[in-house]
Amino acid sequence: MRSIAELGEFGLIARTRRAASSGGPSVRLGIGDDAALLRVRRGQDTVVSTDASTEGVHFRWRNAHPRTVGRRAMLAALSDLAAMGARPLAFTWALAAPPSLPLSRFDALLAGLLAESQPQHCALVGGNVSRAVRTSLTLTVLGSVPGGRALRRKARAGDRILLTGVLGASALDRLRAERSGGRIRHLPASRLAAGRRLARTAGVVGCIDVSDGLEADLGHLLGPELELPLEPARLPRAPGFERACARLGVSATELLLRGGEDYELLFSVRGNAPSASTLSRRLAVPVTELGRVRRGSSGRRAGGWRHF
Amino acid sequence: MRSIAELGEFGLIARTRRAASSGGPSVRLGIGDDAALLRVRRGQDTVVSTDASTEGVHFRWRNAHPRTVGRRAMLAALSDLAAMGARPLAFTWALAAPPSLPLSRFDALLAGLLAESQPQHCALVGGNVSRAVRTSLTLTVLGSVPGGRALRRKARAGDRILLTGVLGASALDRLRAERSGGRIRHLPASRLAAGRRLARTAGVVGCIDVSDGLEADLGHLLGPELELPLEPARLPRAPGFERACARLGVSATELLLRGGEDYELLFSVRGNAPSASTLSRRLAVPVTELGRVRRGSSGRRAGGWRHF
Repeated sequence: MRSIAELGEFGLIARTRRAASSGGPSVRLGIGDDAALLRVRRGQDTVVSTDASTEGVHFRWRNAHPRTVGRRAMLAALSDLAAMGARPLAFTWALAAPPSLPLSRFDALLAGLLAESQPQHCALVGGNVSRAVRTSLTLTVLGSVPGGRALRRKARAGDRILLTGVLGASALDRLRAERSGGRIRHLPASRLAAGRRLARTAGVVGCIDVSDGLEADLGHLLGPELELPLEPARLPRAPGFERACARLGVSATELLLRGGEDYELLFSVRGNAPSASTLSRRLAVPVTELGRVRRGSSGRRAGGWRHF
Repeated sequence: MRSIAELGEFGLIARTRRAASSGGPSVRLGIGDDAALLRVRRGQDTVVSTDASTEGVHFRWRNAHPRTVGRRAMLAALSDLAAMGARPLAFTWALAAPPSLPLSRFDALLAGLLAESQPQHCALVGGNVSRAVRTSLTLTVLGSVPGGRALRRKARAGDRILLTGVLGASALDRLRAERSGGRIRHLPASRLAAGRRLARTAGVVGCIDVSDGLEADLGHLLGPELELPLEPARLPRAPGFERACARLGVSATELLLRGGEDYELLFSVRGNAPSASTLSRRLAVPVTELGRVRRGSSGRRAGGWRHF
């Protein structure tokens, strides 16, 4: 008997997409991007995305403060809105937890969610609480974007690919916590403001957030027929990153390419798009140009986080 | 150390509501009703609700076909839109499951969801698949309702309370399946069309769907200072209900009042609202008047499904 493990996460998503087939009259974009788009109002699209964090998969109580778990879960969910260029409106949460979950942990989880959502004016408007063997947190975020301006996963040969911020910090912190028995401390920066600005910038074509790792998400942005040879030496990283990797005995290149949970924006531009340095000034974040898209798939490798 | 079990589901919802405090500029109704309301467009509100079904809590593989699990999960989620008088737009799902989940079960779950969502033009637009110890299904449904017409949980002294359909069928079926080792077969009827019609009917004031059981949900509709003495003999039930209860050795009154998962609409009307028989004709479903709301809380008992 075949199990879902044989298909893996992306196989299951493709299968779901085929089964769901048709959209409705309001659906502008369905399964397969960072978020879905609904046209509720002329000139404005509603953006919706669902994201889950599960104990033992995405977090472990022994190495993360529950407030950090909440903050990271919210940052991950909001990152999908950022990648669409959307403004957050509201969110719902579904908490599944064992009855023995300490109330202090519930409070800290919730405080963590709100610590990230409130500065973005993203209101908690509902949810669900139910019993489970392990704790999990499912967040559905709603946002809005001017009609037709959402940044989908799009690129073509000749486009330049750019990236906000630096890579590898989240993976490095996770490894450090694992090796030292300490706690996860790193919180990715919110790129909501940068995403909104990108959606209003001429020449910016497509965008994805780096959650599974640069290499995997670049594959999602480009699709099966395009490639971008990555030069590890050109990938942006924090000062002292190599030294920290060497201390832990891990490959810096591995973490930069496949670390994941960076939540930086990876985007495609063409034509009269501004240069990396101009964009960096406008977005008020570092922006690095990674290269130019070409036809082919020779450089492609499977990578990223495997759920099953 | 206090655990979340001490507060219970409704205590946790109240705690969440206090912590979340403020809404955003688009939030018309936050935590505490069947769904939240966002004003995205002048004259139209967006409705959002999240609902979870968990293995071992809401369903068991041994007594429910996975397609039935999917259909029931979707019916439960759509019922919250029905209770607001909303038209469904789209939904997202978050599936958490062990890697060993048979692919046939995944397919049947999804087919069950779509069997209920597609006739309602509620498109599956996204979601999340992740690993977990037990299977759970979190659905977030989006709908729309003409601005200011959503049916909230509202009633005042003097209002009449009415109910669509019959009670107890879901609980009876669950008990039958448990006792016989057979499968759950019952599927609650969709009340989406009835809810939309109610939202356009003059004199209809408030509405809730009966998910936790009539007694508990009546308490949610009326709030702490109102009551409606229920006469079990007047509660609507399917033909042969008493006989079936007697065969299983369970109290018919118990199932009618506290069985739960009926997903009928319980609503308050006043003034020039039509009679039960007129409403029944218009909604094309049986409608029963249960009585008149008065001040007091003497008849109140705690009831309904306890998660913790």
